[in-house]
Amino acid sequence: MEFPSKLIEEAVNQVSKLPGIGKKTALRLVLHLVKEKQENTFALTEALSNLRANIRYCNKCHNISDAEICSICLSHRRDQTLVCVVEDTKDVMAIENTAQYNGQYHVLGGVISPINGVGPSELKIESLVKRITDPANEVKEVILALSPTMEGDTTSFYIHKKIKELPVKISVISRGVPIGGDLEYADEITLGRSISGRTLFS
Amino acid sequence: MEFPSKLIEEAVNQVSKLPGIGKKTALRLVLHLVKEKQENTFALTEALSNLRANIRYCNKCHNISDAEICSICLSHRRDQTLVCVVEDTKDVMAIENTAQYNGQYHVLGGVISPINGVGPSELKIESLVKRITDPANEVKEVILALSPTMEGDTTSFYIHKKIKELPVKISVISRGVPIGGDLEYADEITLGRSISGRTLFS
Repeated sequence: MEFPSKLIEEAVNQVSKLPGIGKKTALRLVLHLVKEKQENTFALTEALSNLRANIRYCNKCHNISDAEICSICLSHRRDQTLVCVVEDTKDVMAIENTAQYNGQYHVLGGVISPINGVGPSELKIESLVKRITDPANEVKEVILALSPTMEGDTTSFYIHKKIKELPVKISVISRGVPIGGDLEYADEITLGRSISGRTLFS
Repeated sequence: MEFPSKLIEEAVNQVSKLPGIGKKTALRLVLHLVKEKQENTFALTEALSNLRANIRYCNKCHNISDAEICSICLSHRRDQTLVCVVEDTKDVMAIENTAQYNGQYHVLGGVISPINGVGPSELKIESLVKRITDPANEVKEVILALSPTMEGDTTSFYIHKKIKELPVKISVISRGVPIGGDLEYADEITLGRSISGRTLFS
């Protein structure tokens, strides 16, 4: 791509580093900003640099938070004995949206992925073990809610090995055919799992 | 959407103002920046604010340019007598990519669109007329290369009305079935136009 201006080129290069955004989309976004009022671009760049400079994490669950301890960890209405282990903030938001869960979270900050150079020590696994072993926390059940992918399963397996001797129940979110999905289009592994993992009809 | 932090919320709101980016995509992009090194976010925000603050346009063709007159307008290898009228920078880049055109450009900065509040006075139409009438420029042909949409056609019609008395040839890019496209799937208007606008087989 030949650019009419170095400024455009540099902006397109930076924007196209974002995941899922190629050079063509980046150019469209950049030209949109050029057409819009200058304040809009400054509001965008300020929000992003402000976020990156001042982002904080909850000391307990490691979710993104504005305070030292996040509102979910602080809430007395939530079950303190349940801890749901998730990959990142997006998953906390997705589970919160279901309105089916009223316990605590533990955000790992990723999953084990040797290809991307992420080992167990990069994740908040030690802190999970500490959280479970501290009697003050009264954790009774740990729910593993990682994506059913190779990396997610590896991470669940690793965590299970680490905490299986501790006096807590360890559960995992159910896997099977998605609701609204057509059996015909479910892959064999999912369908096989949903048969072997069948539950009583109620 | 409930956000765990005001910083995230503000960043997502700003990013989702970009065209074609919804709240979910914005959240994904923002969380990506949070995970990456701080320098990457600053490089992005600097490129964008730098672009917006220092963007300049060519005095002759109104394309985005780093200098007062852009490299295309300055080039002596290009045909000075041909002026191709386009909507914006994206179109200049698209035509340059074809390597089929060796003339000059005139960037209108948009098309006439009453719905979006864009009238002829918002576009560089007066400057096109001046450019054609100035004998120093030696313009012999004006190519109207606007999108074959309602707005593009309206703009072409308006420009044609403005310059038809001037001593220049006025041409328009050809419309018809796209190359590689299947006749079966071409819409009736396109197909009808490509029949009535047929050219000699060569």
